[in-house]
Amino acid sequence: MAGRTKYLLDEADMPTRWYNIVPDLPEPPPPPLHPATREPVGPADLAPLFPQALIAQEVSGERYIDIPGEVLDVYGLWRPSPLFRARRLEQALGTPARIYYKYEGVSPVGSHKPNTAVPQAFYNAAEGVTRLTTETGAGQWGSALAFACATFGLDCEVWQVRASYDQKPYRKIMMETFGATVHPSPSDLTESGRKVLAVDPDSTGSLGIAISEAVEQAAADPSARYALGSVLNHVLLHQTVIGEEALQQFRLAEDTPDVIVGCTGGGSNFAGLMFPFLREKLAGRMSPEIRAVEPAACPTLTRGRYAYDFGDTAGLTPLLKMHTLGHEFIPAPIHAGGLRYHGMSPLLSHIYELGLLEAVAVPQQECFAAGVRFARAEGIIAAPEPTHALAVCIREALRCKETGEEKVILTALCGHAHLDLPAYQAYLSGQLVDNELSAETLAASLAGLP
Amino acid sequence: MAGRTKYLLDEADMPTRWYNIVPDLPEPPPPPLHPATREPVGPADLAPLFPQALIAQEVSGERYIDIPGEVLDVYGLWRPSPLFRARRLEQALGTPARIYYKYEGVSPVGSHKPNTAVPQAFYNAAEGVTRLTTETGAGQWGSALAFACATFGLDCEVWQVRASYDQKPYRKIMMETFGATVHPSPSDLTESGRKVLAVDPDSTGSLGIAISEAVEQAAADPSARYALGSVLNHVLLHQTVIGEEALQQFRLAEDTPDVIVGCTGGGSNFAGLMFPFLREKLAGRMSPEIRAVEPAACPTLTRGRYAYDFGDTAGLTPLLKMHTLGHEFIPAPIHAGGLRYHGMSPLLSHIYELGLLEAVAVPQQECFAAGVRFARAEGIIAAPEPTHALAVCIREALRCKETGEEKVILTALCGHAHLDLPAYQAYLSGQLVDNELSAETLAASLAGLP
Repeated sequence: MAGRTKYLLDEADMPTRWYNIVPDLPEPPPPPLHPATREPVGPADLAPLFPQALIAQEVSGERYIDIPGEVLDVYGLWRPSPLFRARRLEQALGTPARIYYKYEGVSPVGSHKPNTAVPQAFYNAAEGVTRLTTETGAGQWGSALAFACATFGLDCEVWQVRASYDQKPYRKIMMETFGATVHPSPSDLTESGRKVLAVDPDSTGSLGIAISEAVEQAAADPSARYALGSVLNHVLLHQTVIGEEALQQFRLAEDTPDVIVGCTGGGSNFAGLMFPFLREKLAGRMSPEIRAVEPAACPTLTRGRYAYDFGDTAGLTPLLKMHTLGHEFIPAPIHAGGLRYHGMSPLLSHIYELGLLEAVAVPQQECFAAGVRFARAEGIIAAPEPTHALAVCIREALRCKETGEEKVILTALCGHAHLDLPAYQAYLSGQLVDNELSAETLAASLAGLP
Repeated sequence: MAGRTKYLLDEADMPTRWYNIVPDLPEPPPPPLHPATREPVGPADLAPLFPQALIAQEVSGERYIDIPGEVLDVYGLWRPSPLFRARRLEQALGTPARIYYKYEGVSPVGSHKPNTAVPQAFYNAAEGVTRLTTETGAGQWGSALAFACATFGLDCEVWQVRASYDQKPYRKIMMETFGATVHPSPSDLTESGRKVLAVDPDSTGSLGIAISEAVEQAAADPSARYALGSVLNHVLLHQTVIGEEALQQFRLAEDTPDVIVGCTGGGSNFAGLMFPFLREKLAGRMSPEIRAVEPAACPTLTRGRYAYDFGDTAGLTPLLKMHTLGHEFIPAPIHAGGLRYHGMSPLLSHIYELGLLEAVAVPQQECFAAGVRFARAEGIIAAPEPTHALAVCIREALRCKETGEEKVILTALCGHAHLDLPAYQAYLSGQLVDNELSAETLAASLAGLP
């Protein structure tokens, strides 16, 4: 045999606590502000939207937070997830680089999203909440929350960005199979949605609009709360199980990553893999380069402004200090629905500003070319989002081929494309365009910053 | 925590040989016959369709056959597959039974089919074949062969049963992503297809027709061979990696199955799980009941005749002694496309005749109800085919609830439904009917036996 293909951990080796990077950073991230007072928001401001336990995690200064047993029980359905060595891809590329991918597609909905959906549903149920509302872009997050709500007996209502709702009809069926209710966004069920439809009845929507709709509904119902699938500190916190497992798996592989690459929409998947490695780097125990990849159609880190902005389009959320394209920005309907967000996690934005993270934007055709190449070598058809990371892995591996460097590349393969296959069909039939963001559109959108 | 959820094996514990049950049976199965002479077919008769290595496996009397290293390397992309204890389902049902499922949905295409597609592509490539043709029902097999052909550099051409081609458009995209060419069947590309279309231009097709088309094409091209995804001895042989792993995993669980349940279309998935356990039973080391589940719309074992019949509709294959509904039978377009086959594996049919196997037929609505129940408890949305097995598991678990028996139930969860979600949509919206086979249709079809 050619050598080991994957590194598995036993259920007993699953991490039992989440890692909070905040206390390990040289400076704390700027706090969210109340839009009226421009003062830092307090727990009371967030109480209509989130349960107390999650608010406490959002502002926590503790380095580690224990994972409740009820959450570990559900994690056990798919965690620990495998770490793969991409030997067949390395061979196909003829590279001396060693490529590893941490694969989250083994989860019930095929992505990393249940890592946070499950604790979010758990804490809400524990505090007596009976209904959760949320938005979803590609549908990965909505499916994850639908599954988590089925697990803890909560009602689940999802606003799915219109572009994805139309492109990915199977996502809606998955959410309904888990018992959720799904609306396309913008919808006429909310004031935020109706406002958008009044201006553009054919709006393809955006994550920002869908967030407004879900937040508006939760705020109006005392037994409901809102759940967010990325961006916030507690979401990134929950995802750190990915990186904690990967660290253990690299010990099994007796190897150390030189470059860590992941796609970033709101930032939770990449942060989840990367934070535990960044902890090791900050402590001087390893020194990987860390590289975020975003779509050229929605290049938040590489072309956005680092400023206070709303997390949603209607301006219902606190102001978040983050890299943003402007909260009214509506990205082109590229197939990586999970990367179509105008902002970036404030925590990840802060880390980028600290110089601990590089970023690069890639056009979607190169990403799908990488996805097809990867599928034919490794068998897994990657979701459109992580094809962005694969494209940059392949760039790096081919660079190593030229220089002869035996670099160790680690990437976050955060999900499969089973419900996104029409995107591959569009690529294979030559119908995709790159949709790079124009300077004019960007300038107009940034002009709307609060 | 509630207790262990899954039993994983290390890559190093992957079985290195396939198990051939034939030498362990009290009587050998009846041989395939040449349709003209009614004499047993020899290797020369099969040479236009299959490579020598697979013909040798088809008639082998060896108890174990070594798995080539090149095949083990590819198996390593997803094998060993996990064995799960369905604790959450047990709890939801309130049963004292312990339910285990061996999950093959972790493979590149989401089912057990790559277990045989990979060795079939390997042996063909090793003997200089450059193109493989095949049929596919639900699309699982076509996807598996497309992936396997990409791995070993073969061209792949697939005839997909029209009913599935229309119901499951994502399957075609998956096959194309792996580089295959896909035709709906019946097609006008073959004489067999044109004959069917002349009688019924709107034919929804059948596995029997699609096999005729693929066989006809392979036989006409000296550099091509045909690949079959179930039914034949060598296919069942390759699937025994499932059961060999499950035996190891039950040792880890310190448990022993009392009932083994699986769905049967051509029979390969269930045989793959069950044969190693049947070996143990025949040797007196355990004593599980073994139960095959088939759809009420295509009830081969429970209502078919045990007779020599063609494997395909046009009568191009050897005669196989099997439980059959008649080779001209066209089943109702139920959503379990993989179970819409007029015959049954001759080896499994023989084992059924020996009294070593029970069989039961289940209507599709009960199956999807079981699938939804399972999804909400375990997170996995099962393919329509294994929901048949889940329905019977749930029947058994609820019987145990009444009697208080702590039976250990093992089932073959041979794939997920990510590309079959419209079937769940049809069920959830109340559009499914049971399509039980009528006595008149059955009698008419059996009248056409050769």
